[in-house]
Amino acid sequence: MPFKRTTSKLLYRLLHIIYMDGLLKRLYEPSTIAVVGPSPNSDNLATVILNNLITAVRDGRLKAGIYAVNPIYEECLGLKCKKELEEGTDLAIIAVPTRLAEDYLLQAQDKGTRVAIVISGGFSESGGKSLRQLRGTRVLGPNTLGIVDPYSGINTMFLPRYKVTSEGVGLRSIPDPIKGHTAIIAQSGGISASLYDELLSSGVGIRSLTCMGNSDDIDAAEIVNYFSEDDYTNLIALYLEGVQDGRKLMNAISKAALKKKVIAIIAGVSEAGKRATYSHTASIINNSQVYISAMQQAGALYVTDFRDFIALIKSYQMLGTVKGRGVAVLTNSGGAGVLAADEASLRGMNIVSLHSRLIDLKEKGLLPRIASVENPVDVSASGSDSNIEAVYERLMKFDDVNSVVLISTHYPPLITDLLPSKIALIHRKSRKPTIAVELGKSPWSQHIREIYDANGIPSVDSPQQAARVLFLLYKLNELRPSWIPKAEQSSVTLTPGVHTEPELANIIDIFGFKSPKWTWVEREDDLSKIKYPIALKVFSKSIIHKTEAGAVKLNVNKNYATALFRKLEEAFPDGRIYAQEMISGIEMRVGIAHDSAFGKYIDVGAGGILTELLEDHSTKIAPVSASEVSKMLEELKVVPLLKGYRGGIIADLTSLANSISTLSIWAASFDKLIEIEINPLIINKTGSFAVDVRATVEP
Amino acid sequence: MPFKRTTSKLLYRLLHIIYMDGLLKRLYEPSTIAVVGPSPNSDNLATVILNNLITAVRDGRLKAGIYAVNPIYEECLGLKCKKELEEGTDLAIIAVPTRLAEDYLLQAQDKGTRVAIVISGGFSESGGKSLRQLRGTRVLGPNTLGIVDPYSGINTMFLPRYKVTSEGVGLRSIPDPIKGHTAIIAQSGGISASLYDELLSSGVGIRSLTCMGNSDDIDAAEIVNYFSEDDYTNLIALYLEGVQDGRKLMNAISKAALKKKVIAIIAGVSEAGKRATYSHTASIINNSQVYISAMQQAGALYVTDFRDFIALIKSYQMLGTVKGRGVAVLTNSGGAGVLAADEASLRGMNIVSLHSRLIDLKEKGLLPRIASVENPVDVSASGSDSNIEAVYERLMKFDDVNSVVLISTHYPPLITDLLPSKIALIHRKSRKPTIAVELGKSPWSQHIREIYDANGIPSVDSPQQAARVLFLLYKLNELRPSWIPKAEQSSVTLTPGVHTEPELANIIDIFGFKSPKWTWVEREDDLSKIKYPIALKVFSKSIIHKTEAGAVKLNVNKNYATALFRKLEEAFPDGRIYAQEMISGIEMRVGIAHDSAFGKYIDVGAGGILTELLEDHSTKIAPVSASEVSKMLEELKVVPLLKGYRGGIIADLTSLANSISTLSIWAASFDKLIEIEINPLIINKTGSFAVDVRATVEP
Repeated sequence: MPFKRTTSKLLYRLLHIIYMDGLLKRLYEPSTIAVVGPSPNSDNLATVILNNLITAVRDGRLKAGIYAVNPIYEECLGLKCKKELEEGTDLAIIAVPTRLAEDYLLQAQDKGTRVAIVISGGFSESGGKSLRQLRGTRVLGPNTLGIVDPYSGINTMFLPRYKVTSEGVGLRSIPDPIKGHTAIIAQSGGISASLYDELLSSGVGIRSLTCMGNSDDIDAAEIVNYFSEDDYTNLIALYLEGVQDGRKLMNAISKAALKKKVIAIIAGVSEAGKRATYSHTASIINNSQVYISAMQQAGALYVTDFRDFIALIKSYQMLGTVKGRGVAVLTNSGGAGVLAADEASLRGMNIVSLHSRLIDLKEKGLLPRIASVENPVDVSASGSDSNIEAVYERLMKFDDVNSVVLISTHYPPLITDLLPSKIALIHRKSRKPTIAVELGKSPWSQHIREIYDANGIPSVDSPQQAARVLFLLYKLNELRPSWIPKAEQSSVTLTPGVHTEPELANIIDIFGFKSPKWTWVEREDDLSKIKYPIALKVFSKSIIHKTEAGAVKLNVNKNYATALFRKLEEAFPDGRIYAQEMISGIEMRVGIAHDSAFGKYIDVGAGGILTELLEDHSTKIAPVSASEVSKMLEELKVVPLLKGYRGGIIADLTSLANSISTLSIWAASFDKLIEIEINPLIINKTGSFAVDVRATVEP
Repeated sequence: MPFKRTTSKLLYRLLHIIYMDGLLKRLYEPSTIAVVGPSPNSDNLATVILNNLITAVRDGRLKAGIYAVNPIYEECLGLKCKKELEEGTDLAIIAVPTRLAEDYLLQAQDKGTRVAIVISGGFSESGGKSLRQLRGTRVLGPNTLGIVDPYSGINTMFLPRYKVTSEGVGLRSIPDPIKGHTAIIAQSGGISASLYDELLSSGVGIRSLTCMGNSDDIDAAEIVNYFSEDDYTNLIALYLEGVQDGRKLMNAISKAALKKKVIAIIAGVSEAGKRATYSHTASIINNSQVYISAMQQAGALYVTDFRDFIALIKSYQMLGTVKGRGVAVLTNSGGAGVLAADEASLRGMNIVSLHSRLIDLKEKGLLPRIASVENPVDVSASGSDSNIEAVYERLMKFDDVNSVVLISTHYPPLITDLLPSKIALIHRKSRKPTIAVELGKSPWSQHIREIYDANGIPSVDSPQQAARVLFLLYKLNELRPSWIPKAEQSSVTLTPGVHTEPELANIIDIFGFKSPKWTWVEREDDLSKIKYPIALKVFSKSIIHKTEAGAVKLNVNKNYATALFRKLEEAFPDGRIYAQEMISGIEMRVGIAHDSAFGKYIDVGAGGILTELLEDHSTKIAPVSASEVSKMLEELKVVPLLKGYRGGIIADLTSLANSISTLSIWAASFDKLIEIEINPLIINKTGSFAVDVRATVEP
């Protein structure tokens, strides 16, 4: 009854959307907030939070009813303390010792409180209990700074806004929120606070900050979903330290990536987890590659460096994306210009040729005589504000210049602090993405960087970072999600246990791979009917790596066949021996294995003996479409060998990609499959031959 | 007469040392200085320099006689202007329009002035004349900021020390010099100024700053030589944009590296120059690889990122080197700690296990209950100054912890600005290299970073940079020069033109490589005397790439030999045909080519058809010792195939390394050799076979 099933699915999805929407709306825009745990002690975290919320209400920044819960005290900050949570509370903020937090969560459940932020730590992150089982009331945290939403005015960040130096001077320790368009979602409190500090201190606002803490319950996927439907959000910035349900996150990101930009930095996943060791596919991949591929497929830009991540958020909010690879470097320091151009080249940006289009500026005397009008354009240390302005204005006219790195070191006498606003004036008309590099650490350097930032031109202190960030803005423009949600369950399955060729020949055929011709060799007589040379192999469930075990004899000639057959019979009394046609061609490898966070992933690479040595492979979360497989193949160093490189063969890469895609769809939908690997997959003019195949299915 | 030759060589070297020493002493510690070009205009560069020097003399910072040269004006800044340079002047600082600069240089020659700094630009860097030919007076520059030497007090940097904002506020634009131990040598003025600004603004002094400008005459090698003998210098920091005489620089650096640490950042050499295209060796190497190898061989640490370069100088001066790979990360932010640990792991540092040695701190209540005592050690956001202190003090006792990344984000309430000095107190006793990461951009973040810097613990604003810099300090500890100056001229030479095998069989034999057995095939009859299978090849000076031209037939069986011989005869009427024994084994490639800056370099890598695809190769400037070749081989991904990997062969790598080293010594000393390449060099159990060889010698 397919109709009924679809209906209920739709209904479920609809209910889920309403529920989730309502749920997270109560987190970010609550009508009633309970703060659990404040006391007369003003350093108490709950007291700090309560104080911040009361102030926000008083100042008109937050519209919500607030009450305090503490059975011990009569009142706190002038509010009468309730003994317990009340019915009709949208959000409970729980900041009490760990052992009490759980009691209050149970109370929240009883009273129908929909969401709780559990500030308290000491749960699963330090070997304690997980809060995952408490499903009645949804939980953000535990061990979290909570949320900041400058639009609704809610702010649970309990960090001191000022601190007093040992000499008694008060200094800003963390800035106040400003409205902006980046939804920051981070697992770590320290990272949340520092991202917030970096952006706000540069005058860049945020849509929201969500510190997930342990994310025992509400997870990144749900929050991504929420902000993907949010009108104020244009960028979702994720800091992750691993995920529980990778596919749920990929689904959320790939949906969000159709409407918003998504960027991600991931920590703590570089070490290979404990994996099955049967296949190379499992052993050569580390977690970090799986995460990177997952993010890319879902349409998120993966960023490796923390400072680049911060600069990218700031730059995106000021500039938007970069539409092409063409870049111009404009400088008064040749050296700094070259560092930027080198980095841009290294990333594959195009240092466009400018000489013929700028030489007239020099001829007209608008540039110093010693200026260079190549790219980098170097007005030299004798250049002035107006020299730089003249070149910058001209660069705006060139369609092949998609972005500009502007490095006007402030040291030369003729460079003033009026330059940034002059540049900004031109920039506002043309909107050509420009990053300003201001070198140095002197007060003047900082002064100039502040003016650029305030005028909507992001400033950085490294020529190389400027080039990298423009490249990231270009990639952000190009990124599209390629992730396809899981296919229907396959009807083709395998029985539990380990399977190898030749018994897998049928299934291999379904995917469109070929199997070498083969025959069982029961007696010596059988050897006389075969076309030589052959491979003699032992079929046995007890051998893990055939080659290493000596259970494979390659390139066997008729002369030696009988002797080798006898040897194998003797060495492997439990095995069955078979002869396989020798296939020559380029050795590849295709494998599918299982990651604890993301489930099945596929890896394609060079095969045979070179697999581990060459590190030439490409990974994606399964399933992958044929066109995605084609992109994976393009990444491989060995693939030119399949495209007629230096007189080599020209293979049918389209049908190879189709086969690999079909295999990935099957493997992704066959839950009990632990891993499958074809290695070598030998490619020649007549097709792709699965010479060795091994599949493991769970009991 | 070898004796005589040696004597005169020694004498020459001695004279050269005395001359050079005296020469550069006059640059950095002049007794008499002429400033050429000052005028009543206070913005005039020469006037600014003159003013700075007069002030330095008045303040007692500089002991030197100073006079001004300008035939137009009577006096300048209270000094009577001389009409021209006087006899007995150590140093002339020439800051006049380009067209006049050369006249003054000629005048300096006439008057016996030993050194001139030519501030003026507009010479070779902008397509004008080079000053290289003026050898009487040695020149620093042109197009330079000159030098800063806080020890002698000389400072020719004419950049404004203060600038006035558009609102009329004076701000420091560049700091004053402080004495330190880094000799900075940079080709670019902007980079010189910003390195200077970054270090001095962080309170890190310098031994000297030398801006080389175009370095038309005095070059980096000479300046490196000077500071390698200087007692105040412990670190030489080079910023290069290419060199004229690479080997001279390598000689200087490798001498310096025995006594000082040398670090280098190189810009503008990433694009492949115009190279001969005969060999793969030339076409797959870009300039940047040659520079990197040259720096490593000479014993300098090559750094890629400009900000890491700055942080490395600061950290080295505060901490010295790091003696081992063991690192501990101590933090109150799990996320930031993990970012640092990931980066350290990625660089090959060892995240030592700490749990069993720290757990008692937790049991004794010296750490918060939710603290983690793994590595990273995370005292959590509820941690205090004293919690961090307690762990830090304990870490100092562990011999396997060679360095520490300390990330105490300031946001939590219990972290104060007393922590940095408490940490510094412990650090001063143990001297275990520690980098402090302070995240954020708020005034408090900057306050904390300043305290760390002032207390001798370098602070950075990125967890990843902290890990990278500790790794660089470790590499700095490990680096040793391996460069050997050029060997004697070889007696074995080749005649001009292109040579290939089989005529190169003799020379190949001298290096210890084997040649496959071969024989000329003049007539069809000759084919009957050969052991099959064979390779049939055409010997012809006019074919550049045999395989691409179809002049090689591999794996020829007796059946096809005659037909193929006829075909080749027809296709290449000018060539001679020969038969070569087929060799099986692992295909490698060894090549030597010529770089315009560094001369002969050697490249070893995977051979045959995979050469360009795998990017699996290693480059060094020739000659290289056998032990260095062994290190090159260890870098290659294919080399495990020669060491019995997965049942493969075990080759004699020692004799392979010896042969390659011998080849490199010969090639480096045979000046007229343009390039030589052995590809493939097939390695099997019986030896290393030079199957295809090609050498080009200049006319």
